[in-house]
Amino acid sequence: MTKKMIGTTNTPLICTPLVGVSAEQIMAELEQVLAKKPDALEWRADFFAELADQAAVVAVATRIKTRAAELPLIFTVRSVREGGNPIPLDEAAVLALCAAVCEQTDVEYVDCELSQSPEHIACLRQDAERYGTKLIGSFHDFNRTPTLEELVGKMEEAQRHGLDVAKVAVMPQTLEDVLTLLRATLEGKRRLDIPLITMSMGKYGVVSRLVGGVFGSSLGFAVGASASAPGQVPVEDFRAVLEIIERSMGGNAQ
Amino acid sequence: MTKKMIGTTNTPLICTPLVGVSAEQIMAELEQVLAKKPDALEWRADFFAELADQAAVVAVATRIKTRAAELPLIFTVRSVREGGNPIPLDEAAVLALCAAVCEQTDVEYVDCELSQSPEHIACLRQDAERYGTKLIGSFHDFNRTPTLEELVGKMEEAQRHGLDVAKVAVMPQTLEDVLTLLRATLEGKRRLDIPLITMSMGKYGVVSRLVGGVFGSSLGFAVGASASAPGQVPVEDFRAVLEIIERSMGGNAQ
Repeated sequence: MTKKMIGTTNTPLICTPLVGVSAEQIMAELEQVLAKKPDALEWRADFFAELADQAAVVAVATRIKTRAAELPLIFTVRSVREGGNPIPLDEAAVLALCAAVCEQTDVEYVDCELSQSPEHIACLRQDAERYGTKLIGSFHDFNRTPTLEELVGKMEEAQRHGLDVAKVAVMPQTLEDVLTLLRATLEGKRRLDIPLITMSMGKYGVVSRLVGGVFGSSLGFAVGASASAPGQVPVEDFRAVLEIIERSMGGNAQ
Repeated sequence: MTKKMIGTTNTPLICTPLVGVSAEQIMAELEQVLAKKPDALEWRADFFAELADQAAVVAVATRIKTRAAELPLIFTVRSVREGGNPIPLDEAAVLALCAAVCEQTDVEYVDCELSQSPEHIACLRQDAERYGTKLIGSFHDFNRTPTLEELVGKMEEAQRHGLDVAKVAVMPQTLEDVLTLLRATLEGKRRLDIPLITMSMGKYGVVSRLVGGVFGSSLGFAVGASASAPGQVPVEDFRAVLEIIERSMGGNAQ
């Protein structure tokens, strides 16, 4: 099995989050998740109780990579302001931790919030480049869906910072918002050179999670063991829909 | 099993077309289709070789209803200009045939193209009302997708004519067109009191066929034996996606 990197496949990668609190929980969760055969993993390290212990974080990332070497792993410390858990680290400390993960592990992707200071982003980008780690420039809004132009603007911001993937996850208040997100994805796909990860969250957003790949999203999150955001569907359901779309559209809709 | 009428269910009805040329072909096709357990049937009578023989048409409609009494049946003579087959009848003769089907059979729905003359539509409406048959006011464009306002305008036209269901089926040239159709469906749902049937056709349109129900379409066409329009997915696939959406969204997205 060759490793599928983000943006290299016709159908979106199925990525399952890991949200355990302890190393043992995370490794048990990993076993559950691997049984579902996802294409990629995201370790949401803001759920991890020992986040302040750099060595412990590196050790868990290494254990995940050792167990699932063939799956690209995204290392993510989601901030509270973008929907993550309260953590004992400030932005600079998170940056240092991300840099350590780039340097000391084989993690393929590190998530980098676009709301961080430009200096922090630039600094992390240097470290990531040095160690061959790719960065996902992400934007989240758990309350609303920005306008089409704002959404595409966020994607462009990720590219302007020299990041490798642009991610936008927003909450729809209406079904129109879901269509706006899908339209922004089409538009971003046209304007940008880097792969996109986009989704509408929550109940209304389910549709965008299922069909986002057709509109240009290269990865979708689905539940292997536990969800990390509202609206994620089980891996099996996501895969079933992707297969039906692939079969019906011939797998190359763009 | 109670008969599910259009617009009375949370998830869209799965409707399979019948496109046989002879009565025997149609009845054989019906057996194949019934095995897939659709919610509704559409007999595309413009495929029927004996369309000019009113008694033969009434006889086939009656045989279908007798065999599948529990499924609502749509009787449709699609005109060439809206994507149907060449037929030996002019508009007035089609109208007379539809009136005979209303009077002499238990068919639940008759399709009525909005491009027919207002007098013909008014006349058919009177007949349909008299015999308790419902009319679907339909608009098709196999080349392009009109603007949002034009699409909603077509739906409003169906309601203005006093018809019971509004149907819009259009061809997308881009994925943006698919989003326009879905948006028009949301808008139509908001503005109209009658149920809607909407779809984008062809390869790009597959997405709209799969998720149209979320945006307000009350019925989708899926292949039981043979397709009647481009982009229709197999019944099994359509049902699988509807079940996943139902499960993920709680079945009541509006």
